Amino acid sequence: MSIRVGLIGAGVMGADHARILSREIPGVALQSVCDADIARARAIAEATGALHAGADPWAVIADKSVDAVVIASPDDTHAPLAKACIEAGKPVLCEKPLSQSASECLDLIAAEVKAGRRLVQIGFMRRFDPAYVEMKQTFARGVVGPALMMHNFHRNVCAPSNFTGQMAITNSAPHEFDIARFVLDADYQSITVFRPEFRDAGKAGAPVFMVLKTLGGQLVNVEINNNAAYGYDVRGELVGEKGSVFLRSPVHSEIHVNLQTITTYPADWRPRFAEAYRLQNSAWANAIATGKPVGASAWDGYAASLTAEAGVASLASGTAAKIALVAKPALY
Amino acid sequence: MSIRVGLIGAGVMGADHARILSREIPGVALQSVCDADIARARAIAEATGALHAGADPWAVIADKSVDAVVIASPDDTHAPLAKACIEAGKPVLCEKPLSQSASECLDLIAAEVKAGRRLVQIGFMRRFDPAYVEMKQTFARGVVGPALMMHNFHRNVCAPSNFTGQMAITNSAPHEFDIARFVLDADYQSITVFRPEFRDAGKAGAPVFMVLKTLGGQLVNVEINNNAAYGYDVRGELVGEKGSVFLRSPVHSEIHVNLQTITTYPADWRPRFAEAYRLQNSAWANAIATGKPVGASAWDGYAASLTAEAGVASLASGTAAKIALVAKPALY
Amino acid sequence: MSIRVGLIGAGVMGADHARILSREIPGVALQSVCDADIARARAIAEATGALHAGADPWAVIADKSVDAVVIASPDDTHAPLAKACIEAGKPVLCEKPLSQSASECLDLIAAEVKAGRRLVQIGFMRRFDPAYVEMKQTFARGVVGPALMMHNFHRNVCAPSNFTGQMAITNSAPHEFDIARFVLDADYQSITVFRPEFRDAGKAGAPVFMVLKTLGGQLVNVEINNNAAYGYDVRGELVGEKGSVFLRSPVHSEIHVNLQTITTYPADWRPRFAEAYRLQNSAWANAIATGKPVGASAWDGYAASLTAEAGVASLASGTAAKIALVAKPALY
Amino acid sequence: MSIRVGLIGAGVMGADHARILSREIPGVALQSVCDADIARARAIAEATGALHAGADPWAVIADKSVDAVVIASPDDTHAPLAKACIEAGKPVLCEKPLSQSASECLDLIAAEVKAGRRLVQIGFMRRFDPAYVEMKQTFARGVVGPALMMHNFHRNVCAPSNFTGQMAITNSAPHEFDIARFVLDADYQSITVFRPEFRDAGKAGAPVFMVLKTLGGQLVNVEINNNAAYGYDVRGELVGEKGSVFLRSPVHSEIHVNLQTITTYPADWRPRFAEAYRLQNSAWANAIATGKPVGASAWDGYAASLTAEAGVASLASGTAAKIALVAKPALY
Repeated sequence: MSIRVGLIGAGVMGADHARILSREIPGVALQSVCDADIARARAIAEATGALHAGADPWAVIADKSVDAVVIASPDDTHAPLAKACIEAGKPVLCEKPLSQSASECLDLIAAEVKAGRRLVQIGFMRRFDPAYVEMKQTFARGVVGPALMMHNFHRNVCAPSNFTGQMAITNSAPHEFDIARFVLDADYQSITVFRPEFRDAGKAGAPVFMVLKTLGGQLVNVEINNNAAYGYDVRGELVGEKGSVFLRSPVHSEIHVNLQTITTYPADWRPRFAEAYRLQNSAWANAIATGKPVGASAWDGYAASLTAEAGVASLASGTAAKIALVAKPALY
Repeated sequence: MSIRVGLIGAGVMGADHARILSREIPGVALQSVCDADIARARAIAEATGALHAGADPWAVIADKSVDAVVIASPDDTHAPLAKACIEAGKPVLCEKPLSQSASECLDLIAAEVKAGRRLVQIGFMRRFDPAYVEMKQTFARGVVGPALMMHNFHRNVCAPSNFTGQMAITNSAPHEFDIARFVLDADYQSITVFRPEFRDAGKAGAPVFMVLKTLGGQLVNVEINNNAAYGYDVRGELVGEKGSVFLRSPVHSEIHVNLQTITTYPADWRPRFAEAYRLQNSAWANAIATGKPVGASAWDGYAASLTAEAGVASLASGTAAKIALVAKPALY
Repeated sequence: MSIRVGLIGAGVMGADHARILSREIPGVALQSVCDADIARARAIAEATGALHAGADPWAVIADKSVDAVVIASPDDTHAPLAKACIEAGKPVLCEKPLSQSASECLDLIAAEVKAGRRLVQIGFMRRFDPAYVEMKQTFARGVVGPALMMHNFHRNVCAPSNFTGQMAITNSAPHEFDIARFVLDADYQSITVFRPEFRDAGKAGAPVFMVLKTLGGQLVNVEINNNAAYGYDVRGELVGEKGSVFLRSPVHSEIHVNLQTITTYPADWRPRFAEAYRLQNSAWANAIATGKPVGASAWDGYAASLTAEAGVASLASGTAAKIALVAKPALY
Repeated sequence: MSIRVGLIGAGVMGADHARILSREIPGVALQSVCDADIARARAIAEATGALHAGADPWAVIADKSVDAVVIASPDDTHAPLAKACIEAGKPVLCEKPLSQSASECLDLIAAEVKAGRRLVQIGFMRRFDPAYVEMKQTFARGVVGPALMMHNFHRNVCAPSNFTGQMAITNSAPHEFDIARFVLDADYQSITVFRPEFRDAGKAGAPVFMVLKTLGGQLVNVEINNNAAYGYDVRGELVGEKGSVFLRSPVHSEIHVNLQTITTYPADWRPRFAEAYRLQNSAWANAIATGKPVGASAWDGYAASLTAEAGVASLASGTAAKIALVAKPALY
């Protein structure tokens, strides 16, 4: 009576989902793994004990032996595949972004509203990260008073080679847009994007620094630095009228050698957010079992995409860009 | 084809095992929960979806629908129950201590040797804790040079009301004895126990401070402070000839209020070692599936018990006590 | 043969200068203390062994037994008094701001240029703070690569009761403007000011968040939060292409009680920058003895004031304001 | 009207005293510098503006133009020179150890008692270190409850080449013996010394680990590790019944590069205790001016030496050694 899951996409992120679902989440059976590269799908299926491997994502969604779907395929396939899941009535955990087009998000939202129930959970896994959860709880308990500002820093070792100028905003920043919205429980009204001169022209992406304003007037500052070089590092601070709360990243030990105290950064997001992914996927499985959706919804995916679109506009114009969500359907 | 597990003992520790096995470990089915207090067994069984609840631990071990056993019942039952598991040919994860009597440990070891394979894993979960694992790897890679000393600090908020004078040595310290042996890959030759004056006579247990010497001449210092009041806090530092490595405890956020920066301690071991327990139980399940035992063996349980016995002797005599393990059977 | 110093202003800052000069700086004699409140001048003179006390700052500057002057009187007196020192040919350590008017700064600069030598040192003491000095050295050694961004956070417990809306920019931020210019060795081209909604309307000043761009295209972000409540806290991070360097504030001990680890913030700037003030004043005295000026010059005071003026303009307009320094005289 | 100081000893420590006295302490004039190596004495005198340089320490003490003496010459000269200062009625700041012979300390104490006033201050500068001062205040305020244990760690990069086996106890440990006595306000009754096997036989000194017991039954544990390799590092933790207080060493910045966060250790004690030395010497000068002695007395020097003697005995015997101070003269 396990939930039989079809996994679409067997790249780095898909492989990690396969590992988590097969080794860390009871009550779930990995039914099939699908990838355009069938060899990769087979390798992952074999390593995780999935029953089938294939290359056709539509077949996975249509498969009657698949109860629920995880989408970890390329970004531009997310929305059409998720929409097919809705139409098939199957719960889906869809990696972010839902779409880089806000209007495509609205299209999917319309489908979900028509279906009459939330079937889509967006992979904004930070909502399950113990550090962000603790920050949100501290804030909700009033410990730091009403929020004034939130400072967010997202740093990767190195941008992927296919990174282009605005992908810092459309690809990396949505995690920040979503988590600040989630922690503060607030929507945005505007975004202003700044970009420092980036001397190493050979690298794909310069950093961006963004100042967002919420409807309540709070500032949400976001640094996206995809070529930060020194490590994968995500920081956040929520500043309230009575104090502030600061995230701490997992560190297991410190070493003292050569006149130095040293702690280590991970090279990518997996060690930093391993627990968040496990808890997210566990919550998703549990939500399917209980019928009570959790985590980020398609609406949240839309909010992130609209914010990114405004960010791209601000980068182009050099001035603030407005963010105006449509009216929120009652479903969300 | 899940491993069907029988859980003996449904107290704090047993309840945690039930939760972990049912929610965090795929491939395991909680078959039955057993406790002298049948109501407690039933409550845990219901909460975790276990099929049966009962009060007779021997019946659990004898049950043909039980493939493997977890023992989390009172300390003095550990050895006889584990021995029964060996005789029934069933893998068992036995909470520490295996026995507070080293000779009873040897008796069990004889049974396991006779059985010809390792069936017992002792619940020294720190061997799976990411911080200790990282420390051991750092040491093994030679980063800090040959080991000279290891400093260990074990602090509880408050000793249980049934704590008596020497339980700091027999009940709490075995975790330290085992993990230092494990990290250093070294056995002990002696132990000297010191005890500070404890002014609050109303509390059950004064701290102890122990200096152990390994066969290779390294010092292993252990503070056991069961009434430390301020929090559950386990610290460790391995000092080598080239440097040192220090454990870090999980901290998810820091708060800045009232002229203070504040981080939080847990009130007991569960948050500190949640990941260690999950990884331990997962490794145990995996070891059953693959037939390759992992973790602390009955021999390790014996070593810890013998060290504790010597500690009790040193506390009584006020001088150093020798520790001499018997010859190690080839099984270990 | 000590340098005989006249101190103008005996408020909190002046009293601290008197203490430092009399107890921590050899080779300096406090000749006179002057304050509009003559009783306060006398009290400080008595406590520090100064020979004279008075109420007329011009008399201090004219006094032949005064070799050098420290100005710690109200802000609007800084420039005229410093100019009188220049005309009297006396070295002067002038508290910041030199003036809140950039043109008044230029007027004073003209006087100093006419005098043909640097006589004015501005009290931007952070240039002597060991943490900023270490940051600057780390950056200069190339450890973190070319600079991309600098993040600066300035937080006071509570704004003074006379604080008005723009004083966060004109009064607090100049320290940040100057130190980032100093660490990065770069001038600004623009500033954009944001302000979050501040719910506690009873407090004098809401925070501001500013994004400055240097001529080389680096971003310098500055949070000024004069009602931060939780403590006096100054943070800074310089982000380069290879890594980042982060300031650490002095912390002497940590306490573990009540399920918490606690370290303490000072209530104002004095403990945080005690060493910076001592080193600044020592360097000033040494500079007088050797004739080689150090520290922030009148030109640096002008740069800070011009930046603040642009910040005020940006706050009013809601858009970026340009910063364009006049040509720098050869003296600086 | 400055205090005219004669400095005996111009080695590393003496040079540092000359620098501190001439550049950081008002009210003090360095009258003469004396060293067996006259060239070294001259170099230091010139660098610091001292009036005379010489090679005869007795002449310094006898010199009528010398008001007070600092002794930083080799250890075995401390006691005779300090005694001559007493007989000349001159205040003396004597580097530790007063003597490595407890009976020689008593001889000097007799001389000081005869003189009828405290003239000797021992250079246990840690009593002025802000971290230890804060620890002592926290303890005195009752924040951590009655003391149970104090853990002390003293680590040097590398032992001097003249280091022999017991100098860890006689030369390094006295700082620890004194500061724990000072913070706890308690005398010792016994000491037990342990020594780990030290594999690198080429190095002069193996570490020692000592467990001392105070008269009140508290444990004071001391690690002396003169070949710790990784840095100059002094740590301390006072464990009370309600919590603990932990020293923090000065750290000015942290660097993030190469998948690491890095902070830096000093190579020797000077950066770590720069502030302690400055405050100690300032307090000494002030004590001469006011006639009210401060800091560690000859009695404290005796207590440290007697403890070290017991430590050497314990190292030899392998068992605990008693520590029994003579009756304390009323002068102290």
